[in-house]
Amino acid sequence: MSHDAILDAIAFDGQGLVPAIAQQHDTGEVLMLAWMNREAVAETLATGRVCYFSRSRGRLWRKGESSGQAQRLVELRLDCDGDALLLLVDQTGVACHTGRRDCFFRAARNGALEEIAAPLVSPEALYG
Amino acid sequence: MSHDAILDAIAFDGQGLVPAIAQQHDTGEVLMLAWMNREAVAETLATGRVCYFSRSRGRLWRKGESSGQAQRLVELRLDCDGDALLLLVDQTGVACHTGRRDCFFRAARNGALEEIAAPLVSPEALYG
Repeated sequence: MSHDAILDAIAFDGQGLVPAIAQQHDTGEVLMLAWMNREAVAETLATGRVCYFSRSRGRLWRKGESSGQAQRLVELRLDCDGDALLLLVDQTGVACHTGRRDCFFRAARNGALEEIAAPLVSPEALYG
Repeated sequence: MSHDAILDAIAFDGQGLVPAIAQQHDTGEVLMLAWMNREAVAETLATGRVCYFSRSRGRLWRKGESSGQAQRLVELRLDCDGDALLLLVDQTGVACHTGRRDCFFRAARNGALEEIAAPLVSPEALYG
């Protein structure tokens, strides 16, 4: 199936990227925010397995390729301006490289950042 | 209360911006993605009313200033790398300028984009 109509509707930025929010499809947890280029979106739609573009490594990043903590795509949605994506996913294990379920584990409370979630698995177990 | 410790933990990009996801605090709906600069985050933390930075207008954008559809901040969270924010909010009315509850109303289905939500209010009623 061609996904050109979808890809053409995405307003990639000057670096060819678009921010993508990953949300666990059934619980509503916001797991992480990462970036995709056109190739990453195309691969994700074609395979059903979420692939991002790693800005730090400068290459495609198939989520879970090192850690095994993959994301199965349930649905990809585009916002009104076409410059942000919402990925409804089924997350295997944990989304965060720190071993936490999601990346947003620091909350602003009383003028400071408070850690509100502990790792469920050690990074060494994920990447060791 | 000083929020400097929180502001200093945010990794703003080369343009001084950070992407912020707004999520309805009780239902888990992802409402929108917008951008904040340091001043917008500081004002949001100080007032409890969400203020973004509009990239198209090049100025602070107090959500709801034109439409009345404001966002009350429930909690601000920072991700593991400090380069994305999750705002738990209480959204008055609709988040999207099209009159829809949220901005992610286009779903990729069968190789095309399908509108999966209708406006709850007309843009004319919001901005007229």
